[in-house]
Amino acid sequence: MTEFREPLHDVAHLGAVELLTPKPEQSRWFFRDVLGMEVVHEEAGSAWLRGYGDAAAATLKLTAAPAAGVGTIAWRASSPQALQRRAAALDAAGFGDGWSNGDYGRGPSFRFHDPEGHRMELYFVEQRYQPSEATRSTLKNLPSRYPARGVSVRRIDHLALLCNDVAANRAFAQELLGLRLHEQVVFDDGATEIGSWLSPSPLHHQVAYVVDVKAGHARLHHFAMWVDEREDVLRAADILRENGVFIEAGPAKHNNSQGFYLYSYEPGGNRVEIYSGSFLVLAPDFEPVRWNEADRGTGVYWGGALPASFLQYATPDMPGDDAVAAPLFDPH
Amino acid sequence: MTEFREPLHDVAHLGAVELLTPKPEQSRWFFRDVLGMEVVHEEAGSAWLRGYGDAAAATLKLTAAPAAGVGTIAWRASSPQALQRRAAALDAAGFGDGWSNGDYGRGPSFRFHDPEGHRMELYFVEQRYQPSEATRSTLKNLPSRYPARGVSVRRIDHLALLCNDVAANRAFAQELLGLRLHEQVVFDDGATEIGSWLSPSPLHHQVAYVVDVKAGHARLHHFAMWVDEREDVLRAADILRENGVFIEAGPAKHNNSQGFYLYSYEPGGNRVEIYSGSFLVLAPDFEPVRWNEADRGTGVYWGGALPASFLQYATPDMPGDDAVAAPLFDPH
Amino acid sequence: MTEFREPLHDVAHLGAVELLTPKPEQSRWFFRDVLGMEVVHEEAGSAWLRGYGDAAAATLKLTAAPAAGVGTIAWRASSPQALQRRAAALDAAGFGDGWSNGDYGRGPSFRFHDPEGHRMELYFVEQRYQPSEATRSTLKNLPSRYPARGVSVRRIDHLALLCNDVAANRAFAQELLGLRLHEQVVFDDGATEIGSWLSPSPLHHQVAYVVDVKAGHARLHHFAMWVDEREDVLRAADILRENGVFIEAGPAKHNNSQGFYLYSYEPGGNRVEIYSGSFLVLAPDFEPVRWNEADRGTGVYWGGALPASFLQYATPDMPGDDAVAAPLFDPH
Amino acid sequence: MTEFREPLHDVAHLGAVELLTPKPEQSRWFFRDVLGMEVVHEEAGSAWLRGYGDAAAATLKLTAAPAAGVGTIAWRASSPQALQRRAAALDAAGFGDGWSNGDYGRGPSFRFHDPEGHRMELYFVEQRYQPSEATRSTLKNLPSRYPARGVSVRRIDHLALLCNDVAANRAFAQELLGLRLHEQVVFDDGATEIGSWLSPSPLHHQVAYVVDVKAGHARLHHFAMWVDEREDVLRAADILRENGVFIEAGPAKHNNSQGFYLYSYEPGGNRVEIYSGSFLVLAPDFEPVRWNEADRGTGVYWGGALPASFLQYATPDMPGDDAVAAPLFDPH
Repeated sequence: MTEFREPLHDVAHLGAVELLTPKPEQSRWFFRDVLGMEVVHEEAGSAWLRGYGDAAAATLKLTAAPAAGVGTIAWRASSPQALQRRAAALDAAGFGDGWSNGDYGRGPSFRFHDPEGHRMELYFVEQRYQPSEATRSTLKNLPSRYPARGVSVRRIDHLALLCNDVAANRAFAQELLGLRLHEQVVFDDGATEIGSWLSPSPLHHQVAYVVDVKAGHARLHHFAMWVDEREDVLRAADILRENGVFIEAGPAKHNNSQGFYLYSYEPGGNRVEIYSGSFLVLAPDFEPVRWNEADRGTGVYWGGALPASFLQYATPDMPGDDAVAAPLFDPH
Repeated sequence: MTEFREPLHDVAHLGAVELLTPKPEQSRWFFRDVLGMEVVHEEAGSAWLRGYGDAAAATLKLTAAPAAGVGTIAWRASSPQALQRRAAALDAAGFGDGWSNGDYGRGPSFRFHDPEGHRMELYFVEQRYQPSEATRSTLKNLPSRYPARGVSVRRIDHLALLCNDVAANRAFAQELLGLRLHEQVVFDDGATEIGSWLSPSPLHHQVAYVVDVKAGHARLHHFAMWVDEREDVLRAADILRENGVFIEAGPAKHNNSQGFYLYSYEPGGNRVEIYSGSFLVLAPDFEPVRWNEADRGTGVYWGGALPASFLQYATPDMPGDDAVAAPLFDPH
Repeated sequence: MTEFREPLHDVAHLGAVELLTPKPEQSRWFFRDVLGMEVVHEEAGSAWLRGYGDAAAATLKLTAAPAAGVGTIAWRASSPQALQRRAAALDAAGFGDGWSNGDYGRGPSFRFHDPEGHRMELYFVEQRYQPSEATRSTLKNLPSRYPARGVSVRRIDHLALLCNDVAANRAFAQELLGLRLHEQVVFDDGATEIGSWLSPSPLHHQVAYVVDVKAGHARLHHFAMWVDEREDVLRAADILRENGVFIEAGPAKHNNSQGFYLYSYEPGGNRVEIYSGSFLVLAPDFEPVRWNEADRGTGVYWGGALPASFLQYATPDMPGDDAVAAPLFDPH
Repeated sequence: MTEFREPLHDVAHLGAVELLTPKPEQSRWFFRDVLGMEVVHEEAGSAWLRGYGDAAAATLKLTAAPAAGVGTIAWRASSPQALQRRAAALDAAGFGDGWSNGDYGRGPSFRFHDPEGHRMELYFVEQRYQPSEATRSTLKNLPSRYPARGVSVRRIDHLALLCNDVAANRAFAQELLGLRLHEQVVFDDGATEIGSWLSPSPLHHQVAYVVDVKAGHARLHHFAMWVDEREDVLRAADILRENGVFIEAGPAKHNNSQGFYLYSYEPGGNRVEIYSGSFLVLAPDFEPVRWNEADRGTGVYWGGALPASFLQYATPDMPGDDAVAAPLFDPH
């Protein structure tokens, strides 16, 4: 038993995500009016938003850009000491990109990238959301009031990132960020790692690395936001349809992760998931669940097959997406 | 920032709970047939059970006893090293009660008690549940199949323990077990600590220490089991009523913890909660939410006041419970 | 079997309800912004509204008045012939108050009153709601789009009216309107009719007559609006609390009617119910379910006792309501 | 207005359905253990069952037969007089097949067939379910206790019948049974009636006539059972998967009917729907909603396309079902 490797706890949680969008006004409408997030700050081509249950001042940044995709992914360190430890380790391993003064709502941040090239940063100091009279909740332990506007997503949940070498990125997240591996899809008798789901906490996953079938560069598969009940996902489907927003897949239930999902594209083109269910991983010696071709099937436990676009389409988009028959965004 | 005290991560989660019951057969019926748990082992006056989502072989032990109450509360360490560290610290602080070979499904366990005198133990080695053909789930990441029998609780969630000195027991849990304090009820301008909710992980709480208004000894307020959806709690209410089981309070929503609850008494007399909702605490610098008399009110956000028995009754029972008008257990 | 009395089908459904309010602006805010109804017309001290699933142009009328209470209750006849038949019968029985040209959205209406004196009318011609571009649903069979604003009640459901002689009013509704009696609360070994639930269709009830414990005149106990899921009622509780609106009782489940309810007061003082669940009565020889003192208990199947105000308070209000401790309306 | 044709109210509701099954034992397991129905009677190759909310003694009959399909479809008349009127009209129109003494739980029944040839009967006298001690509900207005076993369907809801001439069968149901037409799918600029949804009451539909693309004879598309909440349909999907039962489509939401559905095949091969949501039609002058090719699309509002088998497969099965890739029944 003495060989048991103690888990690292230097990363606390996914802190904030930046999405790049060629349609910033429409993306802002989608996240604010359709999903019910609050716009807390706007400046120089970017808007900062949050869900009503996010503790931080800002958890989603929308930045105008020529093409959709993911910008900086910010992880929160567990302590100032942990931030220094991780910065040193990332630097030593050659992934460091130096310190910044931090984005809106964050203190000093250590910038780095994963092996695939996704831009990331680690920070500890964070501005806590201060509600206004209009946004103060009647619940003292809720950062802001339930908006009852549109879907009303509670908080950001996770990211799925595409990469060319899943094993390398997964190992990077385990070794240098200390994330725990909870599930994997491995094909060819274990020879091909298709996807890996990792988390810094009992949440099932806060990042998934999945193989990029088009060999793109540092692309985003999807960004997920949490709602508390499966019924909220069904209600989200009603709301998206009433707003003329394309639903790519779901509501349905994954077998891996047990997540109850709905996938849509925000107007800028990035895939967005409305997510609930799944399960917590509490056991410290949890054995990662591994799915092979036969086990995994289509990745759906019930609720309708995932379309070809689910495999083919990511942001930024690449040639060859002719399998995507559905309109990206066409509100009437 | 250098003063930030790094959190301890030596305790992973609440591992198992022993309930004492003067009506073991009826208690077994309640947890197995009404709540839908599986009986995995029986021996010498005790039965071991688990929820379909519990990773461990056994998470609830029912032990025949003259009076209801809580027996041994088992916490799982994060690693063998963490187990040794905590054992040493508990011993040094005078709370240690020595090592045991472990209960059913557990390896070597270090026994101790909290200041109030609740019996606890810490262990690392745990037998993972091995499903039979009949209990294997079609989901590879689910420890056993969804039973669809009665309430079908997913897993154990938390305990609320009564004590005479909340501050002392809360400090003990923080200092010696490394639990984080997430919420508190403090009266008299901060002079009187009424209750404290603590957790070893982002789960809102896995133990609450609440003042014993009758100055009893090491009593249990309630033991809670998780279901995934608020609708499952409503469905549980239907099922309890159809089985003639007393519902003391709820379905309703607490303000502190945001928990969506239903309180019942199992036939042996112990209060059992069916629980969902609440929220995860991800921020490493989360400021414990403190409620005073005015903030907290009755502790109910909506859904009907808590009855006098909720304050007066605990197990083992004590004289003066005349406020409890409802039958403890009277199935037709 | 030849004695079986064939049911009358001359009344189709509850068509529209007028509520009197001393705080018209605040009442409008409540129904539009908190409950999510649409204001379709405003004129001379009244506002007309509807739920997104109401087929008619208007189903709720708010009228400024010195005191709260119910105004005209409009029932829709099943056919022009049925309208004439009922008008003749009501007139002959001495309850007729003559014809009117109809309120906004309705054709010729025959005015009458029940024995207690509640103002009612019967009509057949009704203006169907015509959605604007902004309110048109993407569902061709939905009268208007799901608003996703506040509670988003679907449609009006029923009324509970207080009266001094339940038996007389119930018999009136059965004989002259052709409503079917589905449930009753009868005390004193059948000697005292406390309440009767009636409906013109398989809906469990669209009107309830309940005894007025204060012997008032033609008062309103509550007006109920439907939501599709029990979860929607829970969500409504969250929304009411966030808007500082008093919740008198629930979310909880009645034993009689099996209704899943939440009772609030709109700012004008009228009790409003958010309602789901219950059951349909399809059998043509359904035996009315009768509850006596013992059967009925508090009227609650689970979810917290109904407060004294539930019995004491109605609109217009009367002296002696000191049992109502809660604020009628106190948004921050 | 004098031309308004008054609706007929001679049929009250769908009373009972007989399903033919080549695997009677497995079908019985499906309806009893997986769906949670009660077997109330067994005799000579048939079993009679009911949902816990069905008022009648028996609402589903399973009969051993060489091939799957629908047997007798029993409609309940609104009165003894209505039964005589309909019998006379059906006989006069040449659809009558004479009187029978009635099946288990039913009185004298008039047998007839629709133009397609589906066997039907009409009856008034019905045996009300008498609960045993074990099945008596704690709710006085619930025919039997909520079983909390498997899906726990509440009651039978509707049938979809295939036919070669939708218009003829739809007109038959309107004219001779008095059902109201609520929705239609009509292609080719109104020239081709693809499907019609009809009901004797405000329920959206209790029978649908849909064109048989294989020109079979009197086939069954599906038989539907009601659950109260959309969450119950999701839970049903979990339960079917855990029992190794094939799910053909859903959980998802139809555009026509707004029904929230899940389609499975019972072991005998008949398609079974678990159904909730939809809407009530209360307006007596409701204009049937008509969908053309463009409006209707795939018939799905959200939740995954319907598979080819949904169009191709019905019972009894016919050659050419090669589009059905999924196993009909393969529990492990």
